[in-house]
Amino acid sequence: MTEFTNVTITKAANVYFDGKVTSRKITFTDGSFKTLGIMMPGDYKFGTAEKELMEITGGDCEILLPGSSEWQTIQGGESFYVPANSEFEIKAKTIVDYCCNYISE
Amino acid sequence: MTEFTNVTITKAANVYFDGKVTSRKITFTDGSFKTLGIMMPGDYKFGTAEKELMEITGGDCEILLPGSSEWQTIQGGESFYVPANSEFEIKAKTIVDYCCNYISE
Repeated sequence: MTEFTNVTITKAANVYFDGKVTSRKITFTDGSFKTLGIMMPGDYKFGTAEKELMEITGGDCEILLPGSSEWQTIQGGESFYVPANSEFEIKAKTIVDYCCNYISE
Repeated sequence: MTEFTNVTITKAANVYFDGKVTSRKITFTDGSFKTLGIMMPGDYKFGTAEKELMEITGGDCEILLPGSSEWQTIQGGESFYVPANSEFEIKAKTIVDYCCNYISE
């Protein structure tokens, strides 16, 4: 899917880590939402509330998932799940373009 | 207007200046479009094709419009027009969140 249709987009960006990570929220007609974001190269730790499916649209990164001691390499076109109520670490090796899907369970 | 409804958003970001400027395109049902973007602090020069209305949603910048020799200070909540087929310079003093409106004439 290269675009999302019939969505509402919030005009103001969400800004994290002094702007090194920014995202925009898109809301679907059923009330569900995703965020489309950009990470500048750097190391970040994120917490989750809901389960997340992180799609890396572009760029290269390494991730450390909760309960794992091993970093995984993720490239543009790949994705990974993060459990609800957890934390994960990500090292953006390049500019990373992502789509975060929030999954109610 | 704090959000745009019934739009299509392109999933992949547009990336400029090594990712220091990124934007996402939203297309309206009438075929017109806008971009929502982020500039990291820095100095940039942009060219225009169509006339543009640049709304600075958040952040502080200075702009040099075509034909002007004087920099203007622009703050979040303010906006400015740029003529078609021209160039303008912008110094982002902070993270700048913007909405660019393309105006057919």
